[in-house]
Amino acid sequence: MTELEWIEHLRRRLPAVHGELVLGIGDDCAIYRPRGAREDLLLTTDLMIEGVHFRSEETPEFIGHKGLARALSDIAAMGGEPKLCLVSLAVPKTWAPHVDAFYRGLLRLARQTGTQVAGGDMSSADRIMIDIVVCGAVAKGMALRRDAAKPGDAIYVSGALGRSAKRAYRSRPVPRLQLGRSLRGRASACIDLSDGLSIDLYRMCEASGVSARVERLPVATGATLEQALHGGEDYELLYTGPAGLPGIMVGRVVGLDPAALITFRDEPLLPAGYDHFA
Amino acid sequence: MTELEWIEHLRRRLPAVHGELVLGIGDDCAIYRPRGAREDLLLTTDLMIEGVHFRSEETPEFIGHKGLARALSDIAAMGGEPKLCLVSLAVPKTWAPHVDAFYRGLLRLARQTGTQVAGGDMSSADRIMIDIVVCGAVAKGMALRRDAAKPGDAIYVSGALGRSAKRAYRSRPVPRLQLGRSLRGRASACIDLSDGLSIDLYRMCEASGVSARVERLPVATGATLEQALHGGEDYELLYTGPAGLPGIMVGRVVGLDPAALITFRDEPLLPAGYDHFA
Repeated sequence: MTELEWIEHLRRRLPAVHGELVLGIGDDCAIYRPRGAREDLLLTTDLMIEGVHFRSEETPEFIGHKGLARALSDIAAMGGEPKLCLVSLAVPKTWAPHVDAFYRGLLRLARQTGTQVAGGDMSSADRIMIDIVVCGAVAKGMALRRDAAKPGDAIYVSGALGRSAKRAYRSRPVPRLQLGRSLRGRASACIDLSDGLSIDLYRMCEASGVSARVERLPVATGATLEQALHGGEDYELLYTGPAGLPGIMVGRVVGLDPAALITFRDEPLLPAGYDHFA
Repeated sequence: MTELEWIEHLRRRLPAVHGELVLGIGDDCAIYRPRGAREDLLLTTDLMIEGVHFRSEETPEFIGHKGLARALSDIAAMGGEPKLCLVSLAVPKTWAPHVDAFYRGLLRLARQTGTQVAGGDMSSADRIMIDIVVCGAVAKGMALRRDAAKPGDAIYVSGALGRSAKRAYRSRPVPRLQLGRSLRGRASACIDLSDGLSIDLYRMCEASGVSARVERLPVATGATLEQALHGGEDYELLYTGPAGLPGIMVGRVVGLDPAALITFRDEPLLPAGYDHFA
């Protein structure tokens, strides 16, 4: 099974969300509505594993920054403000001298984005494994979701693509929090580009039950078109809505279609981003 | 550094909690108070790593159950009701056929305890690593904490100790959620026994700035006194309060003391539970 199929398989086994849980598996964050509150909470978690999501020769600061940035990007995609994070860190005992530098990288980004470190867990392990949970908030009912793109909407990206793939995934991601907040009430749907345009646009179209045409793409300097189409980890936002939104218009939602057909310059564009279980 | 020293070191580097975050690092859960809400949210995360927290020969159902149970035990210790969990799962590709059984074990306990699976992440990895986050709720201001034990309080445990150490940590933990809820407004302080009585009582005494005398201990059938004192993973609750609380009284809080001196039958009892970085 591919990762997409796994998630769909799991989702079918779960009962429908109920109570204070407004949205469960299948978007960038879950949405929880506390009793009586004026805000909805957004919850997301991101795993990073040595040798899979980063190389062992990366600096500890880089790893700390990237771990938090990936989860913050999910909060940005829902239009939220980050509030707190929990940091689970499993490292070899020999890595203990680097834990300080790891937290230096993480805490710098936490300060810049108003994210408080509220807890976590530590363990020894053979390889470095990091799981970072971020809890964010958004005014009640205002979270951006990936399942509400509509035929006729323009499709936008927030910046040039393929930069991270070109740099062999060594870029320091910048979560688009301010842009995400500015899209609340304006964009119809939003998702972050973590795994690649082709797979993330497919996810958005499938969740919304629409098809899409991509006509042009902003390709990062030095990157190939292939890297812009399928490279992951750019952490730009991909969103839909009326004409005149900020960002770069790349195409249009063209019709209702449960099969989520996507074309790029009139050729079919198949989802081909990173898949852990393909 | 030991794990306790790491956590203290990290805590000193963090700014004081502010805004909606009421309690950060240092208790079983963080406490978040959403604007306008009648309830506080409890957030906790628990790592489980193959070869550290369980053996690779355990069944996938057992691993799924235990992963969720450990995080639920933190919610129980704060007197909360579990609401949702996020499941981060990194497994070797060869383990893919077992993911279904893993979720079977996890989902059974989730159903029994009213915990909705709201999201997560998946990755490939060399070894199985699981990080489970639980979000729970408790009436505003009513969470049990570990830092409010007072001189004169009786000290209780919720059941016999050493069972898990005796069984080489292969017991299926049962989080004491109902007991935790019943202690709200009655116990002065509470913590779950995840790492062992000696270390967890030390944590509670240190957070509260008190010393304690332990006079007797309920030892699980077949377990040694050593296992009851220092063995981890019993997931019983340890709590303080007036006479007449449910559970087994094991001693008394005897005085204010920032050094958190603990005696067992008049001999010093040093914290000696499991430490990942000792």
